[in-house]
Amino acid sequence: MKQWDTVAIVGVGLIGGSIGLALRERELARNIIGVGRRAASLRQAKKCGAVTSTTTDLARGVANAEFVVVCTPVADITPRVLQVAAACPATACITDVGSTKAEIVASLDKSLNGKGNTGATFVGSHPLAGSEKTGPQHARADLLEQRVVVVTPTRRTPPAAAALTTALWESLGADVITMTPQAHDQSVAAISHLPHLLASALASATPTADMRLAAGGWLDTTRIAAADAELWRQILADNRLHVLKSLDKFEKVLAKFRQALENDDQRKLLQLLEAGKEHRETVGN
Amino acid sequence: MKQWDTVAIVGVGLIGGSIGLALRERELARNIIGVGRRAASLRQAKKCGAVTSTTTDLARGVANAEFVVVCTPVADITPRVLQVAAACPATACITDVGSTKAEIVASLDKSLNGKGNTGATFVGSHPLAGSEKTGPQHARADLLEQRVVVVTPTRRTPPAAAALTTALWESLGADVITMTPQAHDQSVAAISHLPHLLASALASATPTADMRLAAGGWLDTTRIAAADAELWRQILADNRLHVLKSLDKFEKVLAKFRQALENDDQRKLLQLLEAGKEHRETVGN
Repeated sequence: MKQWDTVAIVGVGLIGGSIGLALRERELARNIIGVGRRAASLRQAKKCGAVTSTTTDLARGVANAEFVVVCTPVADITPRVLQVAAACPATACITDVGSTKAEIVASLDKSLNGKGNTGATFVGSHPLAGSEKTGPQHARADLLEQRVVVVTPTRRTPPAAAALTTALWESLGADVITMTPQAHDQSVAAISHLPHLLASALASATPTADMRLAAGGWLDTTRIAAADAELWRQILADNRLHVLKSLDKFEKVLAKFRQALENDDQRKLLQLLEAGKEHRETVGN
Repeated sequence: MKQWDTVAIVGVGLIGGSIGLALRERELARNIIGVGRRAASLRQAKKCGAVTSTTTDLARGVANAEFVVVCTPVADITPRVLQVAAACPATACITDVGSTKAEIVASLDKSLNGKGNTGATFVGSHPLAGSEKTGPQHARADLLEQRVVVVTPTRRTPPAAAALTTALWESLGADVITMTPQAHDQSVAAISHLPHLLASALASATPTADMRLAAGGWLDTTRIAAADAELWRQILADNRLHVLKSLDKFEKVLAKFRQALENDDQRKLLQLLEAGKEHRETVGN
């Protein structure tokens, strides 16, 4: 397994912190530089052992990095990667952990992976391992173990950089799936962004007076609605066309449920519930 | 705390089995009779210690019971309680654990709690402690601890029977909330039945090819879709008018999300996500 001399993590929240912890626990990197804007977060990341040193100076933080993982919110990724590329070694590889990929990858491909580029290269990544919790205090060395990380190389991505990025995630215990940025965004609209939107809508639509009866079903179904609202605004806005298409599909099924209830069509209702159960059971708990 | 000589549990699945386990662990009943139709379930309930004896003969099973808990599917509760009332001591109290209450309680109030009735009495209950799992093999002595049980007495319910039923649930560690059957059905439509319907619709609407990317969000949001489809058909059908009203409310919020996405109105999108987060955070995890 590849051993790194220096890895930089820009943005040490839940994901960034967990990457750092996993690198340290598996003894895969000698230096893990945490780069951030808030001194308090950096102190916490250092304290919990996610990084070996910290700095608020991005250029200094990435100056000697062989690999840089940018873990900032979606809207911030493109400018941050460009700053990293301008300051890190020309041989470095940069990846991100953003929940959407098409816009980010298109923009950075153009800037960093174009013909004649002699500097650092960029490969898009998305670890499917978030939660409603944020901050380095929730970081865990096993957050990525047996979780899927989507890596989204394009025709412009240097194959060596894609291989290195895949190797990094696999060395942390993740299962890597390679997709185009567009296919990724379409899939996560259905499997992640729409569920988030529904959880939030359900949480809002539930009358406060009824919440004293909240049990497992409501708690599970709405849990992700507690995630950071601004992060999710960026994700949903960035991927809104795919999310709208997924919403169309969902609303068609929902209309069938409504019709079955309105018509008191119990045979149809059973069919719909059986279809949902069957589909849900094709994956684990 | 009241000690029982004999409690009968009709239907020893997840809930019935958990009631039996809790009664035994807390040493609250000398005899716990498991009544069921399938010998295999009864054997399993006996084996895991949820009951002290079992029978497929309902009349024999309840003949000496001071308290009977009917834990059968919703559509089966009314006829089963009437059978129990015809066979148990005249001093006995009967309750159920059905997820809907208005129809069941109205029907049984008329038969059992009417003027001139000298036999067993009925009090409606609904422990909010199910899960997507079924069967006595998932029963747990602590299933009801710190969980809400709604008890739904009416003007016709003998106060002593309501008090006894409340005492039973509290002795198992539950928090009892008293509501009218109608108010109960309206509340659970919003907090339990609509979430179930949405989880099922989302599970069905998710393209199979995207499910390899399923992570915490989708798994949480759809978990209850794996529950028994026939049980839920009965619940949704029985409570369909309240569920439709809850669905109306949900669809209004969903339409706001759709509009914000279609108009790329990011300020509105953030507001909606913040409202969902705020509402979700008023209850625990």
